[in-house]
Amino acid sequence: MTTTTICYLVPGIGLKDAERARREARLTEIASSDTTVVVDQVADGPRSIENAVDEYRAMPEVLRFIRARQDDFDGFIIGCAGDSGLEGAREQSRKPVVGPGESSILLGTVGDKRFSMVTISGERARIKRRLVRETGLDVHRLVSSHTVDIPVLELYGDPRKTQSRLIALMHEARHKGAEVMLIGCMSVAFMEPALLKEASAEAGMPLVNPIVTAVKMAEALCAMQRFGG
Amino acid sequence: MTTTTICYLVPGIGLKDAERARREARLTEIASSDTTVVVDQVADGPRSIENAVDEYRAMPEVLRFIRARQDDFDGFIIGCAGDSGLEGAREQSRKPVVGPGESSILLGTVGDKRFSMVTISGERARIKRRLVRETGLDVHRLVSSHTVDIPVLELYGDPRKTQSRLIALMHEARHKGAEVMLIGCMSVAFMEPALLKEASAEAGMPLVNPIVTAVKMAEALCAMQRFGG
Amino acid sequence: MTTTTICYLVPGIGLKDAERARREARLTEIASSDTTVVVDQVADGPRSIENAVDEYRAMPEVLRFIRARQDDFDGFIIGCAGDSGLEGAREQSRKPVVGPGESSILLGTVGDKRFSMVTISGERARIKRRLVRETGLDVHRLVSSHTVDIPVLELYGDPRKTQSRLIALMHEARHKGAEVMLIGCMSVAFMEPALLKEASAEAGMPLVNPIVTAVKMAEALCAMQRFGG
Amino acid sequence: MTTTTICYLVPGIGLKDAERARREARLTEIASSDTTVVVDQVADGPRSIENAVDEYRAMPEVLRFIRARQDDFDGFIIGCAGDSGLEGAREQSRKPVVGPGESSILLGTVGDKRFSMVTISGERARIKRRLVRETGLDVHRLVSSHTVDIPVLELYGDPRKTQSRLIALMHEARHKGAEVMLIGCMSVAFMEPALLKEASAEAGMPLVNPIVTAVKMAEALCAMQRFGG
Amino acid sequence: MTTTTICYLVPGIGLKDAERARREARLTEIASSDTTVVVDQVADGPRSIENAVDEYRAMPEVLRFIRARQDDFDGFIIGCAGDSGLEGAREQSRKPVVGPGESSILLGTVGDKRFSMVTISGERARIKRRLVRETGLDVHRLVSSHTVDIPVLELYGDPRKTQSRLIALMHEARHKGAEVMLIGCMSVAFMEPALLKEASAEAGMPLVNPIVTAVKMAEALCAMQRFGG
Amino acid sequence: MTTTTICYLVPGIGLKDAERARREARLTEIASSDTTVVVDQVADGPRSIENAVDEYRAMPEVLRFIRARQDDFDGFIIGCAGDSGLEGAREQSRKPVVGPGESSILLGTVGDKRFSMVTISGERARIKRRLVRETGLDVHRLVSSHTVDIPVLELYGDPRKTQSRLIALMHEARHKGAEVMLIGCMSVAFMEPALLKEASAEAGMPLVNPIVTAVKMAEALCAMQRFGG
Repeated sequence: MTTTTICYLVPGIGLKDAERARREARLTEIASSDTTVVVDQVADGPRSIENAVDEYRAMPEVLRFIRARQDDFDGFIIGCAGDSGLEGAREQSRKPVVGPGESSILLGTVGDKRFSMVTISGERARIKRRLVRETGLDVHRLVSSHTVDIPVLELYGDPRKTQSRLIALMHEARHKGAEVMLIGCMSVAFMEPALLKEASAEAGMPLVNPIVTAVKMAEALCAMQRFGG
Repeated sequence: MTTTTICYLVPGIGLKDAERARREARLTEIASSDTTVVVDQVADGPRSIENAVDEYRAMPEVLRFIRARQDDFDGFIIGCAGDSGLEGAREQSRKPVVGPGESSILLGTVGDKRFSMVTISGERARIKRRLVRETGLDVHRLVSSHTVDIPVLELYGDPRKTQSRLIALMHEARHKGAEVMLIGCMSVAFMEPALLKEASAEAGMPLVNPIVTAVKMAEALCAMQRFGG
Repeated sequence: MTTTTICYLVPGIGLKDAERARREARLTEIASSDTTVVVDQVADGPRSIENAVDEYRAMPEVLRFIRARQDDFDGFIIGCAGDSGLEGAREQSRKPVVGPGESSILLGTVGDKRFSMVTISGERARIKRRLVRETGLDVHRLVSSHTVDIPVLELYGDPRKTQSRLIALMHEARHKGAEVMLIGCMSVAFMEPALLKEASAEAGMPLVNPIVTAVKMAEALCAMQRFGG
Repeated sequence: MTTTTICYLVPGIGLKDAERARREARLTEIASSDTTVVVDQVADGPRSIENAVDEYRAMPEVLRFIRARQDDFDGFIIGCAGDSGLEGAREQSRKPVVGPGESSILLGTVGDKRFSMVTISGERARIKRRLVRETGLDVHRLVSSHTVDIPVLELYGDPRKTQSRLIALMHEARHKGAEVMLIGCMSVAFMEPALLKEASAEAGMPLVNPIVTAVKMAEALCAMQRFGG
Repeated sequence: MTTTTICYLVPGIGLKDAERARREARLTEIASSDTTVVVDQVADGPRSIENAVDEYRAMPEVLRFIRARQDDFDGFIIGCAGDSGLEGAREQSRKPVVGPGESSILLGTVGDKRFSMVTISGERARIKRRLVRETGLDVHRLVSSHTVDIPVLELYGDPRKTQSRLIALMHEARHKGAEVMLIGCMSVAFMEPALLKEASAEAGMPLVNPIVTAVKMAEALCAMQRFGG
Repeated sequence: MTTTTICYLVPGIGLKDAERARREARLTEIASSDTTVVVDQVADGPRSIENAVDEYRAMPEVLRFIRARQDDFDGFIIGCAGDSGLEGAREQSRKPVVGPGESSILLGTVGDKRFSMVTISGERARIKRRLVRETGLDVHRLVSSHTVDIPVLELYGDPRKTQSRLIALMHEARHKGAEVMLIGCMSVAFMEPALLKEASAEAGMPLVNPIVTAVKMAEALCAMQRFGG
């Protein structure tokens, strides 16, 4: 049995130790038992990614990290729903690099499903359209973009409020023709799994979690590299 | 640790016991150690799938099998590069169903790569175009379709000949603008892995194996069902 | 003057003699006087096509019929709005084969019209999108999919109710941007012509009937085969 | 039995009586015995359509003719492979109007075939791309555009030369990936049918004739208007 | 310093001298100081362009003018939001020809913006879709088409009413997902600039004026011809 | 007369004073006499942009510069054919920002032309496809990507060699179906204009220069901001 070690790389410097451990535990639970997931963050960079300036500041750090640590891991996940630096990282790296956004679009819409995306703050629909386009899918399968409009702190402080909001947005998306909702923001993705499953059941619509799709896609690309797939 | 049991269902009745065991071993090697892969075949149906009549005859059998055995497995792979019956199987099944063709297109072309496909006999380009289209990708990313044009028996009898032929076709595909070659036929996909890896290295082009992508995509969809992804 | 004989093949075994005769009369009225239309059904198969299992069961029967009776007809229409088995039938047959769904999409939307489709029961929009895609048109010209939601028996028992429902759905479709409504179900297509024409006039929107487009497209493909068109 | 009268309207003034009669006979042979085809030409306009100035000069004449003679016919065919004035004619007319170019694209490529087009003189590929686009199909299904490069007079004077040229172009188109060749020019379309059929048989590729597809599509649209299709 | 002289050609004969002077002044204000804009109209043609008959009548006149006056100007703008005759004019002319509609679509939606269009009277959405398609953009970026529904005379007589109407339509378009509104009619485009800027500010949405984009695109194409751009 | 001041911002630190002055002179010559073009470079960053690491390093510097100097200019051009940081810069800036790559695609292919691109070193076709896609055009209009394969120093040292190479690539591109060639690299774009014009004339194909299109598009967007266009 071969073990696969995947680095989940947070492209910012704001991650506290406890939260780092919590996320690593969550990712490990999702991974197969042959896979070790290590959560790390870049040496320098923005505290969090709120806009393009933050994102652009993070991107060269992501590349530096991946170049420096390439021999330590079998693959990398960029820990950000916007897949910051994905294209460049792939260009530089011999090891597979996965973007959570791309993975959720590819694996979460299987069967030609029309989908919507939900983010925490007011990112514009155009940015999500670009993500879909770079993934190589028809951009019009993205039915709509939604925003939970709850500050990050409150998100975890009052999770039931977030849950209700997600349910309401899923109803809205379905009304517009979506068959599935993709979570487009890591803070929501790392919420308590039970809450997200309840929201999905309540709304009667799959709620695709990018941390699940990212781990599984990283495992897939590592296996493809190993087995000639 | 949860164990996942996946059924690789051959949509025909021609599979001998030894070959069944060989394929099961190969798939098990690809799967993570949490996953058990069982190879089975339909109760009735064509000896092999050579044309549309065979394919149509196989499709209701695939549905019957999946409906009858749904509680025995966590997910299904339709053991045929044409994904025969995939759409209907998904409609009928509460468990994830994966088509090797679709999985190779989604996972093998990540990063918006342009690709070609190779089959064993003269399937027309239009059929491959339909497969790409149903996957939801832009059909024009399929650069070309190729045929090894070697009878199945000879394929395994003289594997070096097949290997040379694959290398030649990959050179041809690259000349037309392809960045990756997808194996579009199960007989080639189950060839000796080392031969395929050599062919890929020799041609300097990834050679995507649908049995690797199918197993990994089945694991991904099962995990998504379990973890709310 | 050359006579053309077209077989309208019902892919099920539920058609009673009286209804067979009624449908044949209706199709004959639509056909030119050089064309003879014969209604027949498969030897074995589902009573009706309600889901994918039924459809897949019907498909090999359609192929068998067409292969066996190829010399008896100049062309075939598959008597089902889902065009069950169309691709395989074309692969097997030297004579033209027409699908009512495809014919209504090609001939009913001439002039780049945006369109909607109406079916009798809850087929999902995705299935109609696939039909549009296989026809080779831009899938986004399909504005919306609608359901009359009236059991088949009641359909003919209370035709005025169906008519009102069709009018309501056409208003809804136009509001969404559709310029024409396609009938996506044979039970509605074979309703009393006057009722359908009234519905269309009342809603101020063309209501495309797949039995008309199928007969005319079969005549066209037969003529193209004869005259080198 | 209802009779349908279709006007095949030449958008120029150069048509001699003998040629008018020959074309009418040819179109009548293609039409069903319920259809009468009358060949006429505009009152004023260019002698022939060689470029955009000719085409633009013809377009208002086409509209005038159709408006003036609308009650005399059940439908119109614009006798020009470029479909000059089609969009405006449809806007003005209560009766169906058919363009040979559009009809050959819709009926000649059924089954999602990739196709090429052949014209008599050097029309640029872009103009054919526009025609495909206006028809509502994916423009990339048009594989290539070809030119016979033989003056019109010589075309009929030395038909065997034209035939050889067509065969050569069909081989070229197939090499590029086309599955069918559409005739994109009326002078070729009205050549001796036997010559065209031989060319198609020799090249092993369908050669779609726009006069056949135009007549059949006109019959289809007239029937749809009459029967609520 | 090289001076560029651009002819803004009105494709009708209804333009009074005072209005001609007003429009020339407006266009001159938009142009750079190296550019001279001359407003002229065709010798013969429709009083205004209300439908396809008018448009088709205008098109050959546009070509005649441009051919006759080609040496007098460095470039031409067709003074009509429908770009009447643009394709033919480009075919005939060695000098750049610009269509206001095309220029507003290319320059007004930079950054992959989704957009809506507003016209004065009930042109159908399909016509605007064709314009988008001919420009070479994805037709689905056109979110919706709107109509001010105010007679031309009243437009200038009661400009505040038009302004309110524009604001209301921009709110409607944004609700449907548009990020920018394009003016699709010259009578609105030549309204008092301050009124249009107010409307845009009030609605919080860019209101793209085709006379600005047309002048700037004409300058760009002339520069490209001069500098090898 | 209003003067427009545009900053041409080089996203690297390698620009010598003499070359800065030469480029400024060239851009000023292209600009209208109302426009002042200032060439500047970022405070920190890569010496040149050779790969994704360089590009990502440059991107936050571009944003910092534009944010800091926003009140000093009416618009910005990012002086790099890859449009590094364009999307983020637009998000941050109240003033128009232009990418040379995007501008050459939008203005250089007017009339739905199919095009090819030429770069100095081996950038992969996929990167150019992404640029086309972000511009919002159909990616398949990009026929092919070419490389001059001459080191930058030699480029200016032996300009005739570069010219011959460009001519050869244009012939190659036309053979593949391109109607125009876009220069996709600033070092080639700033070559002696006469050499580029000769190459274009010799090859009989337009050779679109991104510095011309960028300046003209910057003037257009500034005018649109001023005049409500």
